Amino acid sequence: MTQKNKPGIEVCLSPALLHLYDVKGALVVIIDIFRATSTITAALDNGAKCVIPVASVSECIALGASIPGSVTAGERDGKVIEGLQYGNSPSEYPVEFISGKTLVMTTTNGTRLLHMVTGADQIVIGSFLNLNQLCGYLASQGKNVLLACASWKDRFNLEDTLFAGAVINKLQHSFDFNCDSAKAALYLHHQSKGNYLDFLKNSSHYIRLSAYGLQDELAYCLTPDLHPVVPVLRGREIVKQ
Amino acid sequence: MTQKNKPGIEVCLSPALLHLYDVKGALVVIIDIFRATSTITAALDNGAKCVIPVASVSECIALGASIPGSVTAGERDGKVIEGLQYGNSPSEYPVEFISGKTLVMTTTNGTRLLHMVTGADQIVIGSFLNLNQLCGYLASQGKNVLLACASWKDRFNLEDTLFAGAVINKLQHSFDFNCDSAKAALYLHHQSKGNYLDFLKNSSHYIRLSAYGLQDELAYCLTPDLHPVVPVLRGREIVKQ
Repeated sequence: MTQKNKPGIEVCLSPALLHLYDVKGALVVIIDIFRATSTITAALDNGAKCVIPVASVSECIALGASIPGSVTAGERDGKVIEGLQYGNSPSEYPVEFISGKTLVMTTTNGTRLLHMVTGADQIVIGSFLNLNQLCGYLASQGKNVLLACASWKDRFNLEDTLFAGAVINKLQHSFDFNCDSAKAALYLHHQSKGNYLDFLKNSSHYIRLSAYGLQDELAYCLTPDLHPVVPVLRGREIVKQ
Repeated sequence: MTQKNKPGIEVCLSPALLHLYDVKGALVVIIDIFRATSTITAALDNGAKCVIPVASVSECIALGASIPGSVTAGERDGKVIEGLQYGNSPSEYPVEFISGKTLVMTTTNGTRLLHMVTGADQIVIGSFLNLNQLCGYLASQGKNVLLACASWKDRFNLEDTLFAGAVINKLQHSFDFNCDSAKAALYLHHQSKGNYLDFLKNSSHYIRLSAYGLQDELAYCLTPDLHPVVPVLRGREIVKQ
């Protein structure tokens, strides 16, 4: 009797390491906890028609102008970028505001990584806000998974890796995970004991964004399962699966 | 009264991320625990005149032939490479054999990383075998430090990162460490509780090399302070500091 092999799960710690992974036929989960993928998850759960991630501010402005019922979003140094309308925080997109609208969004790290991935079976959005829903979806597909951390300008960051560890913690019995970065992510998750906010208060990104007064948003981004949706990329649009 | 800033310490998790770090004027520690930097440390402490790391097998053979009293070393898949004389394990270089000799060595990851670093103040060799001696030296120099993990074909590995964490654990009060990879390395070190062998038995590299019967060598590589020397690069030669 042959036993069916489990699919594999791996963790890519930085976009600069993406070329080392074979994503053909795999589900690639884009992870940008502070805050792009958290905000995308929240906006879609709150009824946004779709989210369109774009690489540049000018593209964001042009696309926003061409789509009726759209809003544009992007931040630099904790402030809305000139020419755009809103920022990158989940709380800016409650149901009563975002429902039925298209969110056109530019971010530094998450968008760039999303556009770097080619050949994947599907690109999915991950955040603590949809942790369990995402894990259920990944387990149901029977495909290899790459957890791709957006990091910070290609530098390893703790929050994206911690989230990868949270996913592996839930999926470790349904997937094979032989890569050391997956094991390290799981160790970091153990180390956090599930107290994500406390664990990350010492991280470089938390410290940087706290200086802009964003503590409440960061705490929100670290709250599991507030927005149980699975955002997936279809063409240029991110929509609910 | 102005307070003198502490120097900084950072961790580069893969040669593919080296370009993100400014090594000008810094001490760069090359880390390739299984087994290049462990073997270099052991050979020098056991009296080797110097170690010359080279990129290719042909270069290793040619250089070995041109230097009287030299031995050549290199492995592939756990076996000595054809045309070379010895392997990459520390136990192959006891005092009675290596004393006074030049070791010309080619390895996959450590040598490549060492040759990638340009502009550093000094390149130093790190391993558990010289952990305390190395830390004392780094603390005495008052310069920025980059702990550079050789990794495995650019992929993150646990053993090099764990060693970086062991260094930071000792130096955390003498250096500033703001980068998330340094914090993650320190977390992994905490997680190991100092039981390096147990912690790493699940790592990909340990599993791969154990299949070649190298368990004793791996345990040796994880034993702190057996060889209290500080190997540094001078020109093309690695010598005792």
